[in-house]
Amino acid sequence: MHAKSNPTPMPRPKAADYLIASKKCELQNLAYFLQMGRLVLCISNLIHALQRERGASNIFLGSDGKRFANQRLEQIETADRERSNFEQALNDIHQELTENPGSSRLLNLIACALHGLSGLDDLRHRIQALDMTSQTAIAAYSETIQMLLAVVFEAADNAVDPAIAGILVAMYNLMHGKELAGQERAVGSAGFSRGRFDTALSQRMAHLIEAQERCFEVFANFADPDSKALWLQATASRREGEVERLRQLGCSIGRYKDLDTSLADQWFELMSDRMDELKTVEDSLEAHFRKRCIEKFTDAKNSLTHQESLIESLDQHDRAPEPMLVLCGTQPNDPHADTVQSDGVSQRFGRSIFDLVQQQAQRLQQMSDELCAAKEALEDRKTQEKAVLLLMNHRQISNDEAHKLLRKLAMNQGKKLPDVARSIVAMADVLA
Amino acid sequence: MHAKSNPTPMPRPKAADYLIASKKCELQNLAYFLQMGRLVLCISNLIHALQRERGASNIFLGSDGKRFANQRLEQIETADRERSNFEQALNDIHQELTENPGSSRLLNLIACALHGLSGLDDLRHRIQALDMTSQTAIAAYSETIQMLLAVVFEAADNAVDPAIAGILVAMYNLMHGKELAGQERAVGSAGFSRGRFDTALSQRMAHLIEAQERCFEVFANFADPDSKALWLQATASRREGEVERLRQLGCSIGRYKDLDTSLADQWFELMSDRMDELKTVEDSLEAHFRKRCIEKFTDAKNSLTHQESLIESLDQHDRAPEPMLVLCGTQPNDPHADTVQSDGVSQRFGRSIFDLVQQQAQRLQQMSDELCAAKEALEDRKTQEKAVLLLMNHRQISNDEAHKLLRKLAMNQGKKLPDVARSIVAMADVLA
Repeated sequence: MHAKSNPTPMPRPKAADYLIASKKCELQNLAYFLQMGRLVLCISNLIHALQRERGASNIFLGSDGKRFANQRLEQIETADRERSNFEQALNDIHQELTENPGSSRLLNLIACALHGLSGLDDLRHRIQALDMTSQTAIAAYSETIQMLLAVVFEAADNAVDPAIAGILVAMYNLMHGKELAGQERAVGSAGFSRGRFDTALSQRMAHLIEAQERCFEVFANFADPDSKALWLQATASRREGEVERLRQLGCSIGRYKDLDTSLADQWFELMSDRMDELKTVEDSLEAHFRKRCIEKFTDAKNSLTHQESLIESLDQHDRAPEPMLVLCGTQPNDPHADTVQSDGVSQRFGRSIFDLVQQQAQRLQQMSDELCAAKEALEDRKTQEKAVLLLMNHRQISNDEAHKLLRKLAMNQGKKLPDVARSIVAMADVLA
Repeated sequence: MHAKSNPTPMPRPKAADYLIASKKCELQNLAYFLQMGRLVLCISNLIHALQRERGASNIFLGSDGKRFANQRLEQIETADRERSNFEQALNDIHQELTENPGSSRLLNLIACALHGLSGLDDLRHRIQALDMTSQTAIAAYSETIQMLLAVVFEAADNAVDPAIAGILVAMYNLMHGKELAGQERAVGSAGFSRGRFDTALSQRMAHLIEAQERCFEVFANFADPDSKALWLQATASRREGEVERLRQLGCSIGRYKDLDTSLADQWFELMSDRMDELKTVEDSLEAHFRKRCIEKFTDAKNSLTHQESLIESLDQHDRAPEPMLVLCGTQPNDPHADTVQSDGVSQRFGRSIFDLVQQQAQRLQQMSDELCAAKEALEDRKTQEKAVLLLMNHRQISNDEAHKLLRKLAMNQGKKLPDVARSIVAMADVLA
């Protein structure tokens, strides 16, 4: 029966081959994320440069072109260099990106980001010509940065290795928190340079502070100890005390009393310093990411080699007795001898291959279980954004107001923010 | 600035290219699932043949080789043919499978299934030699079928298109329900041929009936109208009334009173007929799946062609005025003329590309939202299996008892089964 059971001449697919293919697949995926890490680093650098350019442009426009003219040009040069690095990284990973059938969303987000970047030159011309309010310029930069951040979010969402997904979740939240700090810098600059904060400005600042905190919380949950220590160090510095003091001026008493406009420069410097320090945390996280990816890749490669040699040795054991089996097979009416023989062999062979397959299944299951925590953090953010959009549409309120309403609902109901957001999204489906 | 902004000679990646890449990615994914559909059909056919072989082997062993000897050999031939078809399909899709970095779990499950199939010849030898109880033989066939089913589950879990995922969820549940019917056939055969059902047998039967119902519920939620109508027709037949009558004998009065052993044959025929009819529903579902895949593929292809020509025409509009821009650019101190020009162009160009990118983003988001329902059905099953495993381990009870306990908990708490299962899994994490 053994010899006859294959009616076509094609090679019969074997369990061992698919086990190896499963391992190779993992390896390929790790290699992909090693490259993705480079893309994320490039985005981190590019965003930092754009944030600095945005800050310089803000002061340049606010001073009618009198201040920061040179700093701005320097920042533009840096940003262009980082943009080229990003584009180079994109070109280098292009094949892997486009061949991965699951990356259509990532590719479209990259299209979005590239579109944003393609508007940079026009934006700079207009700023140079003082043909734009600083608010509009800030909004334009922020939009492009948001698009770049969305690429990092999606990269984290695509990760299947829990360790890698975790670090990318930490990275996205750190980058997002830093960007919210950048927006807070702009809001504060506007308020301090005018000498007063109106209600909208105070509310926006309060929202940005709170949203930052939440980002950093998630970052701290998923970061490696070194990066976390670096971040704790950054948040415990004397600068942060100063930031806190100015924040309170901006958020509370600004409406009633005029502020010293010279605080604007101090604020700008403090926040710029804060962002630069957060960038060093990003770099530490990225270094850790690369290290983990390489470790994982090396482990997976060793495990593959080990399994291949294991399977080979099993294969040899399996092949040796086969001629005997065929001989036995010529006596189909004496099935007992045959069965004992083939059973002995297939159990020795089968058990071992099956053990390896089972091991791999358990490992993959464990990875998928561990992945849940990272995915949940991403899911929470998506749900929250959906809930905010729903509130904005239904109540005709601003983004800041919707965030505030969400927080108020959570407080009143004694629930966590993500839970309230989930209820809102679920309700909307029911009420729609 | 326009002419100088690219410092390296590499081609600058463009938003339009990544938009097209995103569309192509979707197309590639649809093509992949078209092939996956073929694999699923082959699995459906193979499982059906194995179920028939299992049934024939059961009667063959139960009658000490006196009955169904020829039917069994015929079934073996059919099963071997279907196995070859399955292996052929695997070979044909091999490249796509192994090149997809997200399919390591699927590949390992295929390894599992191939391992199961590799034990078939031994199993058949032993059955031929009457060297095995029918219970052991049934367990061996069922295990292999379970492994094949796991491949279908994973295929459904990997789908990103909501329509395709939904049909695969329907397919998995239909196949699983039919397999539970097959196991019920075996349990019933054992009871009726002995003339009595002991408690364990009755409980097992009750569990299999309930589990079948739940599978068919999910199937009905996700099936196309034609397949659902076919299924409703199957469940409304006179045969089903007869099945119901015999089920009640097996589940309730069996313990107290001896049954007519001739019911065994009637039962076996009724259930075999039921399974054959369910197979025709599977075939209808598969035909629908293929139709939908081809429709989706054609739509996506047309949309790609349309967008490509749109982008080309935008590109030409964009290129025509560029020499003027360069001329303007020679007067950097007259930024106004330049800005208006370049703005006019870039807004016409930029807006339109951006609109397309946004459209694609919305489409992908909508798909991902719609996908949730299908994923939830799969997630529910995974959670339930985890909860059952936890209960089995913690309470040292059987699979059937764990299922029963789960249902009891749900009933007592007035909650849905998946919710109770989720609480158990969450608790276990806390208590571990």
